[in-house]
Formats: sequence, structure tokens, C-alpha cells
Amino acid sequence: MSDKKIEIIEVGPRDGFQNVPDFIPTEYKLKVIDGIIRAGIKSVQITSFVSPKAIPQMKDAKEIAFACLDRYPDSNLFALVPNMYGAKLAVECGIKEIYYVISVSETHNFNNVRKSHDESFMELSEIQKLYPYLKINLDVATAFGCHFEGDIPIEKTMAFLKRAHDIGISSFNLCDTVGLAHPMMVERLVDASLSEFRECEFQIHIHDTRNMGIINSYKALERGITKIQTSIGGLGGCPFAPGASGNTSTEDFVYMLNRMGFNTGIDVNVLIEVALDLKEHISGNYSGHQVLIDKDHR
Amino acid sequence: MSDKKIEIIEVGPRDGFQNVPDFIPTEYKLKVIDGIIRAGIKSVQITSFVSPKAIPQMKDAKEIAFACLDRYPDSNLFALVPNMYGAKLAVECGIKEIYYVISVSETHNFNNVRKSHDESFMELSEIQKLYPYLKINLDVATAFGCHFEGDIPIEKTMAFLKRAHDIGISSFNLCDTVGLAHPMMVERLVDASLSEFRECEFQIHIHDTRNMGIINSYKALERGITKIQTSIGGLGGCPFAPGASGNTSTEDFVYMLNRMGFNTGIDVNVLIEVALDLKEHISGNYSGHQVLIDKDHR
Repeated sequence: MSDKKIEIIEVGPRDGFQNVPDFIPTEYKLKVIDGIIRAGIKSVQITSFVSPKAIPQMKDAKEIAFACLDRYPDSNLFALVPNMYGAKLAVECGIKEIYYVISVSETHNFNNVRKSHDESFMELSEIQKLYPYLKINLDVATAFGCHFEGDIPIEKTMAFLKRAHDIGISSFNLCDTVGLAHPMMVERLVDASLSEFRECEFQIHIHDTRNMGIINSYKALERGITKIQTSIGGLGGCPFAPGASGNTSTEDFVYMLNRMGFNTGIDVNVLIEVALDLKEHISGNYSGHQVLIDKDHR
Repeated sequence: MSDKKIEIIEVGPRDGFQNVPDFIPTEYKLKVIDGIIRAGIKSVQITSFVSPKAIPQMKDAKEIAFACLDRYPDSNLFALVPNMYGAKLAVECGIKEIYYVISVSETHNFNNVRKSHDESFMELSEIQKLYPYLKINLDVATAFGCHFEGDIPIEKTMAFLKRAHDIGISSFNLCDTVGLAHPMMVERLVDASLSEFRECEFQIHIHDTRNMGIINSYKALERGITKIQTSIGGLGGCPFAPGASGNTSTEDFVYMLNRMGFNTGIDVNVLIEVALDLKEHISGNYSGHQVLIDKDHR
């Protein structure tokens, strides 16, 4: 298995930072992104084009996008957009690939983006029509359950994927939005998704809320998903689980893969330096373990 | 797989407590053990019969053993012993089952118990002869590597197991003493051990130092080991990895198993109460995540 080509997609600058209450200076955000790219990570979700009223932390999305696109022409730089307005801003900044979010749980979708499924899918269609050259990935939020609707039956997620596929979406990100996934659930959903939508691309986005970040991300890899989203330091959080940790930690996950002989091309020591510096500058929930280990015993 | 009968072996009162520098009052230790048993855990490593000079925390081993054997006649109560003297004390207290420790890495063995392999195996033989009715499990320490000798080749561990088996040992605990295991290593060692020693019992003991506690413990279960050692709160530590966390957290591991439909018979909420109380009373490295989650979202 270790000859698989794995793509680590760093989402710390988006999912990690957006959960930090105090504004992080733009220059510092750029420094973190620089460290991530220096470590050898090729794909980074650099920001989110959301209303600065809803998430003030992301108010510098344009500056971040301009600076990164200019500095790293060879990297894959993505942005999250929750609506048409965000998509417009992203395109204006030169972003070539976005993540649009719809939750499988309609209750969660309404709470998250204030739209019904019909409204969300309609907007997604409009974005596609308006920007035919923009690559659109769909964040399949709450694919592993949510606090409003509980467990999400696989059939429901399959129907959701089909609906998106029918309007032309072929890249999906299975998101464990609140950290409810468990290994067997990951196995079942990944198996079903990959066998039902053979020609589509799949990614996985796992939260470490219940200490299953590493195992769930790895399960997805074992079952055939090779694009894994992680967050530097394990930074992030969930508004519904105070104190709980964020996404699967990039440095821990990459450390594990490297130890097992996967060719990630990523230097964990650089990631650890970035994460240690982050911990010193930004208060947040860090679930990464590598940064705790004495340098001599790494 | 979820119809497997799993035995969770709680080692917090031994491996967790022995890493806490300040002495924990005996009454409080007994309170924790009581909570663990109340939660439904049947097997507990309650203490260690070591020199009080080496580990002052365990100086109340006799009192703990007497109290527990008296209070919980239906539970499986174990003690760790590093030498003949410890075995004698354990037997005098009425302990019926012990864990004796030898490291596969002879360098680690010498650092840990000041004995060569020959000396350790000779002592183990003597304990067997002296106490034929005592059940002896062998802690196969550093089975997944150590900081002195690095990676341990599987052939070396197989030869080590054979040597122990030849003198009559049939219950082995594969220990990731310093937290160097990774999932593929667990797969390989467990597969080799179970196929080579079909008539023996195997357990696994994993440290969460590098955030692979849950995944490594679960890998062992997937490959056929059904006796898993964990520690309440993820309490514990490693003298070679300052700040790093201890064993796989009992409440997190059991939570995951219960969510997946395994019949553990263990009430996670009781475990969380115990772990929360522990965190309030005892400073240490807690790697468990469940205790961080808001009660409403557990």
C-alpha cells in the first residue's frame, strides 16, 4: 500500500484559523502558509471568502489570496466559499479551485449557510454556469452525522452525491464536520462512495473531536481515498464541542505515513517548527502530539 | 467483526499512576479503581510490586492489593512485578496473576531492570518453579522499538517469544513501551505472533506518544488480539519523551468500540466521570479526548 501517491491538503489556514477568536495578523498567516509550503505540502486551503461579519478572522481573504497566488505559482491553492458572493470574490482574486459547502443534513445546512438543499444546489448550479473554468469541489458536510439529525444513513449521502453528480460535480470531500465518524463508518461510506461514483474524485476531512482523527483519516486511505485534508497542529475546533480538538493534525499524520514508508515528500521537522511557532503565537486547540515530543526523541 | 468478545485491561492504576511524581493518597487510588470497576471493566492492573526507592508512587502496593482483592472477588486483578522479590510480595498479598517484564531490546532491559536477557529469563523460570499456580503474563517490552536500539526486527521478537514459550510462558503482552509503533508494524507483528504461536494468548499495550494510540490498539484488534490494555484518561507518560502522552485512553477507546456496536459491557459515562475527577485531583499527561467534550454532545 505504501506506494500509493498521497496528496495531503492542508486546511489549517482556513479551518484552523477560522476557529481562533482573536484576529491573526495577515503577515503571520502568510508566514504559516509559507512554512507549510516550505515543508513540501503542495495543496493548501489558504482562506475562506465568507462574510467578515460572520467570520471576522477571514476578512483578509483577498490579501491572502493575492499574496499566495503571486508567491507560489506552482502550488495548488484553494479557497472555501459558502455562496455565490464568495465565489465571485474568489474568482476576482484569481483563485482557480474552490470548495463549496452543502451539508447532507438539511437542518445543519440551514444552520450553517441559511439555505435549504434546493437553494444550495441551485446556487451551486449557478456558480458552475457563471464560472465554467473554475474547478469546484463539493464539501459534503455532516457526511458522518450531525448533532441535529444524528447518524446520517449511507443511502441519504449516496442520494446527495448523486444529486450533485447529476449537475456536474465530480470532486467530493467527505466531511466529518463535528467529529462523529468512527472507523467502520468511514469504511462503509468510502466503500460505497468509491464503488458508486467510480469516475469521481474523493477527499476526506476528519475532525479529531473524539480522538479518532488519525484512525479515521487512515481508514479512508486504506479504502482508497488518497487526498486527505489535515490541519497543522491539529488546530481547529467545533462550535458544538467546547474544548474539543480540531482536524487531524498534519504533522502527526505525515509523521505516521513517512514512518510507514509512504513517499509524501513532506518534511515533518519543518511542519513541527511551524506548529511550535503557532502554539507560541496563537491560542487554540492543538491536538497534534509531535510538537510535544522532545527533539532528541522524534 | 463487532461480535468479537473484547477484554479491556485497565492499566491506569499502574502505568498511569507510576508516572505521576506526587504521591497519590491510597484512598484516592482505591476510589479510581472502584470507578473503573463500577463502569464495567472486569480486568485491572491495580499496582506494581517494585522497590519503593525506584518508584515511591507504588509504595502502597500491599494495601492496594489487599483492599482490592477483598472488595472485588469477581474481578481479574493483576499486578506488575519486575523481579523475584516483587513476585513474592504479590503472592503474599494473594495476587493470582502477574505481569513480569523483559524487554526485547537487551539494552533497554538492562536500563529498565538491570539484567541481561539470560538473567531475566532465569529469574522468570525461578518464579515459575516457585509459584506453579501463579498465572504469569510476559510483558514483551520494546516490541515495537526502543530509543537505544531503534527498530526491533520481527525475527528478533519471534526468537524472544520462542525463548519464553520454551520455558512455559503462553501469555504475552506486546508492549509499545516508548510509543514507536505504527499501524503497519502492529499488523506485521500481530500477524507473525498469532500465526507462529497459535496456542498462546496475546495482549497489546500501546502508548499514545505519537498520536497513534487509538489506531495501533484498534489495528491489533482488527488482526485478532482481543485483550487490549488501556489507561483511564490516557494517563501515563514516558521518561524519554517529556510532555508526551501516556497509554491509549480507556474512555476514548471504549467509546469508539461502543459506537461501532461492540459489546464491551462498559459504561463510558462512568469512565468519563472518573477521568474528569482524576484530572481535577492529579496532574499528569491526559491524552483522552472524551473528557473535553461538552456533556450535551457526548
